[in-house]
Amino acid sequence: MKKLYVKDLKNHYDEEINFSGVVDNIRNLQYVIFMILRDNTGKVQVTIEKEGNDELVKKVEEITLESTVKINGKLIESPKVKLGGMEIIPNNIEITSLSMSELPIDIKDKDNTLRETRLDYRFLDLRREDNQLLFTCESYIQRMMREYWYNNGYTEIHTPKISAKAAESGAETFKLDYFGKEATLSQSPQFYKQMAMSSGFDKVFEIGPVFRAENSHTSYHATEIWMVDVEISWIESYLDVMEEEENWIRYFMTNLKEKYGEKIKEQFGVEVSDTSKPFPRITFEDAKKICKEVYNYQAVKEDDLERGEEELICKYAKEKYDSDFVFITNFPYSARSFYVMKDEAGVTQTYDLLFKGVEITSGAQREHRYDILKKQIAEKGIDPKDLDFYLEFFKYGVPPHGGFGVGLGRIMMRIFEIDNIREATFIYRGPTRLNP
Amino acid sequence: MKKLYVKDLKNHYDEEINFSGVVDNIRNLQYVIFMILRDNTGKVQVTIEKEGNDELVKKVEEITLESTVKINGKLIESPKVKLGGMEIIPNNIEITSLSMSELPIDIKDKDNTLRETRLDYRFLDLRREDNQLLFTCESYIQRMMREYWYNNGYTEIHTPKISAKAAESGAETFKLDYFGKEATLSQSPQFYKQMAMSSGFDKVFEIGPVFRAENSHTSYHATEIWMVDVEISWIESYLDVMEEEENWIRYFMTNLKEKYGEKIKEQFGVEVSDTSKPFPRITFEDAKKICKEVYNYQAVKEDDLERGEEELICKYAKEKYDSDFVFITNFPYSARSFYVMKDEAGVTQTYDLLFKGVEITSGAQREHRYDILKKQIAEKGIDPKDLDFYLEFFKYGVPPHGGFGVGLGRIMMRIFEIDNIREATFIYRGPTRLNP
Repeated sequence: MKKLYVKDLKNHYDEEINFSGVVDNIRNLQYVIFMILRDNTGKVQVTIEKEGNDELVKKVEEITLESTVKINGKLIESPKVKLGGMEIIPNNIEITSLSMSELPIDIKDKDNTLRETRLDYRFLDLRREDNQLLFTCESYIQRMMREYWYNNGYTEIHTPKISAKAAESGAETFKLDYFGKEATLSQSPQFYKQMAMSSGFDKVFEIGPVFRAENSHTSYHATEIWMVDVEISWIESYLDVMEEEENWIRYFMTNLKEKYGEKIKEQFGVEVSDTSKPFPRITFEDAKKICKEVYNYQAVKEDDLERGEEELICKYAKEKYDSDFVFITNFPYSARSFYVMKDEAGVTQTYDLLFKGVEITSGAQREHRYDILKKQIAEKGIDPKDLDFYLEFFKYGVPPHGGFGVGLGRIMMRIFEIDNIREATFIYRGPTRLNP
Repeated sequence: MKKLYVKDLKNHYDEEINFSGVVDNIRNLQYVIFMILRDNTGKVQVTIEKEGNDELVKKVEEITLESTVKINGKLIESPKVKLGGMEIIPNNIEITSLSMSELPIDIKDKDNTLRETRLDYRFLDLRREDNQLLFTCESYIQRMMREYWYNNGYTEIHTPKISAKAAESGAETFKLDYFGKEATLSQSPQFYKQMAMSSGFDKVFEIGPVFRAENSHTSYHATEIWMVDVEISWIESYLDVMEEEENWIRYFMTNLKEKYGEKIKEQFGVEVSDTSKPFPRITFEDAKKICKEVYNYQAVKEDDLERGEEELICKYAKEKYDSDFVFITNFPYSARSFYVMKDEAGVTQTYDLLFKGVEITSGAQREHRYDILKKQIAEKGIDPKDLDFYLEFFKYGVPPHGGFGVGLGRIMMRIFEIDNIREATFIYRGPTRLNP
């Protein structure tokens, strides 16, 4: 690759270089033209003295903002130039792609364009500086997530997204025509990551899409979600799963803060959460009590946390333990799936992790004992025939195991304090959004 | 995590330990029982002297192979024990999951069970030692792929898998009911990775699923494929893309060979390809000529390589250049998509990469000039309305760019010389295979 990036230019002072970039700005003054070019590592100034440069001046006057150009010229160190203390003095300018002169959305200030119009032109919307940072960070966060897993003996798996039957009971799935038969799109890799435990992979992760046919138009629902899934064998209890998740989050959050903390503060006005303190752990029962007694919150739901309660518990955790994260443990069985483990007293070995007011992840030890699993399926009123293939996994020896799942979009929303998942997803899909 | 893995046992001699594992084998002799346990890092022997250990002996006699157990006992160094020179002398054995006494497939020798039966019980089939290695390597290969990208400034993206229209003309797609409208499942992230170029991400990669509704029952077709996609901005020509792909392949192949080469040889009888020499580059025209003149091959197809020709060119490359990889460049336009770039003489800026007899990847510089792209769409007889959303990406300035795609299953098949994609995919999906 021969492309010279802005970040590397400082090693090429006084050389004749080729530089390709997007035209970010042009200031055509009386005696001089300043053209600012960008690539995804930064910006650089191209300076054209008008006198004696008729051809170049003519060329630049053809160029619209957002066009791409290839410059041949001399790079010189110029401490007076604010942008990196350097400038390119061009010999030749080639237009590699000319932009239409007017853009359908404002890519410098998001508030000048309606969200839905911006989403119609998502490919332009993503050129905005905050979006460039957001998705660079999303990539980096996943890099650090995987680094933790690699360092700790995990295997990456890819599970099927099309299956004969719905993966979990209840939730709505998309149906598709599969060579004349009906098949469904996966709404969770749950069963297959548990299968991997039965197959002996001990610790696995998957980052992959799941599909949910919910006709919801809220700020946090999407029909296509990239899920981060983890499953771990040989645990002693769900506490092992919580400990592992906490260590993992601390790892990628610390690395994110270190590398991009300053830029995130600049672009989003948000301090990346400090995760150095232990995440507090509160039982479901105590959480309900705190909401009622400390905040006088009157909940309607008895067997699950309401969004209002999630917010209050996070406020409580922040004030009392100085933590943006808080675990809530031992949810009532009625609010959980048939596959979670209960102890002798019937207490579920489950937890949620809340982050800045919102639940971002659910975890549990799974029930791996065939007979009890079968009983729990019946208890939940599910036809065991629908789960025949899943029950098979538990017949031939399976390690005790547990795990958790996190929606990538939801964690991005919380880290960057973005209020709408449409803005936190590279290309959002919802009931009325299938384009671009 | 408290689980002690076999690989770490040697640091715990003479300690009382808890060890959990799968019962791999039991030999019940006159005076002693040897029980072999495994986890995904290795195997260890548990030794029970029968005399004075009635309770333990009774317990072990209940245990079936493939059950999972938790042992409490003393780990001692025993140079006479072949398996790692150590053994566990148990105080207590707890059965955490009892396997049925008979398994429906043979997990020690694959040839004792029909492939389709093995796929029915894929969760057991994956317990086989070669499969454990295969998917551990698949995970490691992706780790090394990403390491190369991370080291070279790439951003990971996730593109939508459900869209309003088919991504590419011609190929068959799955249709689904999307809230009363018809939508299609993505058969390639092609358009969206190009969109990322227009959005300014410069270099991107995605590892994600694609879906192909081909009713094919060959050994190398699947309906769900994990594709590895790369797209790069600011290239000078398709040669930059080839160079980058070659460096990337060299990176992950070299690392794979170093870490797992010996084990792969042992399990699969395959030497991981040496990639230290440059990959030969042969034009399409020359490749046709070589097949005809050197091997007297009579091809029917004129504008593409036949599978027989791919094999012969690979044989040629191996003999002449000692390379398992060979690039074929400049395919006829009639065999390529509308979006590839042609030079002034009409020569496509395209290539394929062949690996041990089979095409594993297609690459090209893309046509980024709006007017020419529009013309090429018309030339190919495609209704431009179907590509409206795609054409938009090229209206507002876009960098010259190119890229390539590789099917993960297909590359696994070639590295390990596995003749059927059903064996090289964690969980295979085909026209008649939707379970488990």
